Amino acid sequence: MSGTLYGVGLGPGAPDLMTLRAARLIESARVIAYPALAGGDSFARAIAADLIAPDATEIVMDVPMTTAREPAQKAYDKGASDIAAALDSGCDVVCLCEGDPFFYGSFMYVFARLADRYDVQVVPGVTSITACAARAGRPLVARNERLTVLPGPLPEDELRARIEGAESVAIMKVGRHLPKIRAVIDGLGLTEFATYVERASLPQEVVLPLVDAPENAPYFSMILLTKGADPWL
Amino acid sequence: MSGTLYGVGLGPGAPDLMTLRAARLIESARVIAYPALAGGDSFARAIAADLIAPDATEIVMDVPMTTAREPAQKAYDKGASDIAAALDSGCDVVCLCEGDPFFYGSFMYVFARLADRYDVQVVPGVTSITACAARAGRPLVARNERLTVLPGPLPEDELRARIEGAESVAIMKVGRHLPKIRAVIDGLGLTEFATYVERASLPQEVVLPLVDAPENAPYFSMILLTKGADPWL
Repeated sequence: MSGTLYGVGLGPGAPDLMTLRAARLIESARVIAYPALAGGDSFARAIAADLIAPDATEIVMDVPMTTAREPAQKAYDKGASDIAAALDSGCDVVCLCEGDPFFYGSFMYVFARLADRYDVQVVPGVTSITACAARAGRPLVARNERLTVLPGPLPEDELRARIEGAESVAIMKVGRHLPKIRAVIDGLGLTEFATYVERASLPQEVVLPLVDAPENAPYFSMILLTKGADPWL
Repeated sequence: MSGTLYGVGLGPGAPDLMTLRAARLIESARVIAYPALAGGDSFARAIAADLIAPDATEIVMDVPMTTAREPAQKAYDKGASDIAAALDSGCDVVCLCEGDPFFYGSFMYVFARLADRYDVQVVPGVTSITACAARAGRPLVARNERLTVLPGPLPEDELRARIEGAESVAIMKVGRHLPKIRAVIDGLGLTEFATYVERASLPQEVVLPLVDAPENAPYFSMILLTKGADPWL
């Protein structure tokens, strides 16, 4: 009998924003897998660190930081292969994932490689979007409002077109794309509705009106545009 | 010294999909507030029931089920007034909210009435969107993909226009709008990409291809359209 693979969302970063189910699975896991920046730290492991048993087996997927796909593909091929070996031996495997596994989560790359052969259970997590909104004190959508989620790396023209017709917007993965995104939002006259959030829920968290945002944003940063959100009923 | 108001997201329904922070706040709360269907049950209270202290004071906001706004407004006026009285007496108040407070959450209506006068802390929760995707085994968005969130009550023409230009789509609050939404998706030739989910994470959960969805859907149902989602890297 093969083991079960659990893809576990950890939430935005504060350890107590993981779910009770995630915590229970991590505490009892004999085999834990997670991505790490090649040669560096794993944010996912850091979130869960206090819950991981000292004698658990750890499968580290060293994912290179590059826009080229092939090196990352190889890292997930290797990770999936190591996870499959553990599952084949009858062990369950808990695969850690920042945020939510199916919302820009790294677990999707493991899922794509193993879901047709093994029992896979996905545990949803708090996304960075609602974590940022909570910290910014900015309601996202009420009643019949629409929400558009856009990745910051999209081309400028597409960002402009998608933001122009939208109500509430969350722009993910801002990072080095901040100047481009800022120009689009300024050009549309929407800066007054824009909030910048980095590392939501962590001690280093920053929440600022977009006009006061720093020049250099980390990968884990977001812009919320809540011109449409009307929380009054 | 006034107390602090906590707006606490409970997640999609399974009690163990609430966060550790939510559970800790609820367990220690002396005053709990939540919405209920007028004269009926409170889904929010049911999710948290096992954690509420027997001697906690409970503020129930009886919200009538009607499309007219005024009766619901009065219920939230009364609830906010009761909560304010508890805060004024120095008590903290934990206000329960299904899903996430700022993502179509009932807490927004309390927030709008009290946030300018009291210290308010919002605890994000797992949204129904990622809970449904997890149960359906359907990754939502990867890399530079876009996600559009639409409420089912939107007019047919607007639904069609918003779905046509989108990648991944989540349609919330399907309920009695199912026939309209189904016609739109069929007309766009997208039915093969559509999954119907009701009461995700609860014992009565239903997950079906849209083509097999029932004629009558409950309010807590959703359609996921994941034609764009490519989880392979």
